[in-house]
Amino acid sequence: MNETHDPSLQSWVESANSADGDFPIQNLPFGIFSRRSGEETRRKVGVAIGDQIVDVAVAAASGTWTGSAAEVAAAASGQSLNALMQCSPGSLREFRAQLSRALEKSAGSETASRMQTTALVPMAEADMHVPAEIGDYTDFYASIYHATNVGRLFRPDNPLLPNYKHVPIGYHGRASSIVPTGTRVTRPRGQTHPSENEPPVFGPSKLLDYEAEVGFFVGQGNSLGQPVPIDEAEGHIFGVCIVNDWSARDIQAWEYQPLGPFLAKNFATTVSPWVLTMEALEPFRAPAFFRPAGDPRPLPYLRSDRDRDAGGIDLTLEVYIRTGIMRDAGLRPHRVSQASLSDMYWTPAQMLTHHASNGCNLRPGDLFASGTVSGPEPSSQGCLLELTRRGAESIRLPSGEDRKFLLDGDEIIMRGYLEREGAARIGTGECAGQVVAAPSR
Amino acid sequence: MNETHDPSLQSWVESANSADGDFPIQNLPFGIFSRRSGEETRRKVGVAIGDQIVDVAVAAASGTWTGSAAEVAAAASGQSLNALMQCSPGSLREFRAQLSRALEKSAGSETASRMQTTALVPMAEADMHVPAEIGDYTDFYASIYHATNVGRLFRPDNPLLPNYKHVPIGYHGRASSIVPTGTRVTRPRGQTHPSENEPPVFGPSKLLDYEAEVGFFVGQGNSLGQPVPIDEAEGHIFGVCIVNDWSARDIQAWEYQPLGPFLAKNFATTVSPWVLTMEALEPFRAPAFFRPAGDPRPLPYLRSDRDRDAGGIDLTLEVYIRTGIMRDAGLRPHRVSQASLSDMYWTPAQMLTHHASNGCNLRPGDLFASGTVSGPEPSSQGCLLELTRRGAESIRLPSGEDRKFLLDGDEIIMRGYLEREGAARIGTGECAGQVVAAPSR
Repeated sequence: MNETHDPSLQSWVESANSADGDFPIQNLPFGIFSRRSGEETRRKVGVAIGDQIVDVAVAAASGTWTGSAAEVAAAASGQSLNALMQCSPGSLREFRAQLSRALEKSAGSETASRMQTTALVPMAEADMHVPAEIGDYTDFYASIYHATNVGRLFRPDNPLLPNYKHVPIGYHGRASSIVPTGTRVTRPRGQTHPSENEPPVFGPSKLLDYEAEVGFFVGQGNSLGQPVPIDEAEGHIFGVCIVNDWSARDIQAWEYQPLGPFLAKNFATTVSPWVLTMEALEPFRAPAFFRPAGDPRPLPYLRSDRDRDAGGIDLTLEVYIRTGIMRDAGLRPHRVSQASLSDMYWTPAQMLTHHASNGCNLRPGDLFASGTVSGPEPSSQGCLLELTRRGAESIRLPSGEDRKFLLDGDEIIMRGYLEREGAARIGTGECAGQVVAAPSR
Repeated sequence: MNETHDPSLQSWVESANSADGDFPIQNLPFGIFSRRSGEETRRKVGVAIGDQIVDVAVAAASGTWTGSAAEVAAAASGQSLNALMQCSPGSLREFRAQLSRALEKSAGSETASRMQTTALVPMAEADMHVPAEIGDYTDFYASIYHATNVGRLFRPDNPLLPNYKHVPIGYHGRASSIVPTGTRVTRPRGQTHPSENEPPVFGPSKLLDYEAEVGFFVGQGNSLGQPVPIDEAEGHIFGVCIVNDWSARDIQAWEYQPLGPFLAKNFATTVSPWVLTMEALEPFRAPAFFRPAGDPRPLPYLRSDRDRDAGGIDLTLEVYIRTGIMRDAGLRPHRVSQASLSDMYWTPAQMLTHHASNGCNLRPGDLFASGTVSGPEPSSQGCLLELTRRGAESIRLPSGEDRKFLLDGDEIIMRGYLEREGAARIGTGECAGQVVAAPSR
């Protein structure tokens, strides 16, 4: 742990010093923001601190960074994080250290007042965007609890397929329909096959679901044909966000054989806009999933002592729902699940190394997601398919309503946070979206 | 059919006038080229004519295009076709008509000599590149012959899944590893499970295959949440190329359940570099697949009289193989199959409309491929999996060699052409790639 993680650090940005905030000085995640009004409304690189955003270009112009950190600031002059993501881990570390010193309570009052007057933008006055130009988006399936729960619905006696404990299963998703938190999600239309003996029908999905996931942005890429050894994999991960992999279960059930999910998923994927760097996550690393006796060891290309001991991340992911009736009644969003990323069967390094093991090239700004983060408890199941056993049961909401799947007007809010004795709590911010009705035509 | 298709048209570029060439004046496909030497080696937009490339920026500077066609030329000033692809069909038509007149034999000798001296680049002195920045790549599965042949290998009694005749099955592929013709393809390593009773192993694929497909570039896009009606679908397709969807069958068999192909496909996808516009294909349109009695009608969103009558494309796709021994012996590539795109069960318009039917946004430059183009004959099967019944049989080559799957050094060359009474033959050019050994580590 280095100086930037010191839990006693406080910032002169007072909103960063609350004990339960997401963005204390120990976090400093990157995002792309735009001011809602004023002369300058183009997209810019920002760093979150409390309820403020550091406008990196403005702060750089006043000399906040020197040396290799200034090169990072120069790479942050565009309208996405892609150039910044490919900076070397060493220079990113230096950038973070210098920014931490500039935001610290003990920073010179001249520095603080200069930043405060020119480089800070209130989050309340900014829109947030998808943080990178995502070249390719990949979705994994790394929770053995999720895979088992879902498998059991289809194959009660044999829920887990034979490849699961050997292969970090993944597939390609759609990059074009990745949207930032707050974007409304239109209920998709599609083909479904509600009755075995009738032809399929086309219409709005009736089994709309969410999936709570963690996303990993690729930092430095690898060349086509060049795999990434497991012990180098984390050097290729820039940071994390939260992902809602919206899923239309009725479309999925009819379309997915033999080539996997397609229109059931690609109508929208919501991401939280702040990217927490791997450095910010350092105090929260955890052992990889403990494989019980009888489980196979990972094949050598997926195996390393370092990854086994600290390849996990102890990130807690919560899912909240708020219906239209709850909103009208002034009820707060209701938590439906809480799970930990450290319960995943595969680590982020294993996913990345597997992805590149055939020579597939990953590019800076590419996104791969964990798959639904579910744990062993009923309360830790990260989608409605699991929570309601595919609609066989319901969840009861504080408004008295029941839900099997999502109705129009329902809002899903996901939040991640990392909390540990001896470290400052940090959070991801929200990944939220409200379902709106399918268009009438 | 309009003036640009007139089969009697000849060009002052003499190499364009051969009867069996791919790039007569009736074709005029777009591509991205770079000169191999000289002062200007950056990527530029070109149009193929005979064995020459029209450097569009240079030709534009000398006033080749006027009016809306000049706007197209201005959109061709970048290093990819994306900006040009989103031009309106009307302005692209005008661009093509004016270029056709400038390249015609009867064009003024001043025009011809000015273009010849400044705007023509011999193909032999240029490298070709992937023609667009491909945001998302989708692969369909539109040949019922291919789906049946492959299905029969796994389910002899029930080869075709119940959804096939209702759903244009597709899945997302990898955009980052799309490479232009001529790029060597490294044999992928990966997990396979050769023996049921043994653990899986990791190593170079032993069942490397190709798939012969036709690719469609999206022109004008659609907004997220906005489907594309079937009769508007072709207005969103810019043009076509040939695609080799390299496939590692042993990796595929072990990884593909339940989420579909991933590392078995994403190590490389080769495209031919010239994009034939939908306008150039007009003389070769064909009826959609004739659905025999008993086959369901397409659901209404996939149904239109116009698409049924002329939604197909009579493009012939040939696959050739040349092994290292054949190259050393001076033997020509050997044709292993020949199939027609008009035998596909789903038309390009049906694929695009289906893709956007849930509101998924397609962007200019996105690529979707047809899936393996196979016909009803044994000689029209577009991959080795089909031709050799998954290695149960072999194909015999003129060198006396046999092949079940590809060996290192093997080169696969795909060529497409369109030929019809009363029209000038046009072709796609080559989509070629040679397999090289997996790296030793």
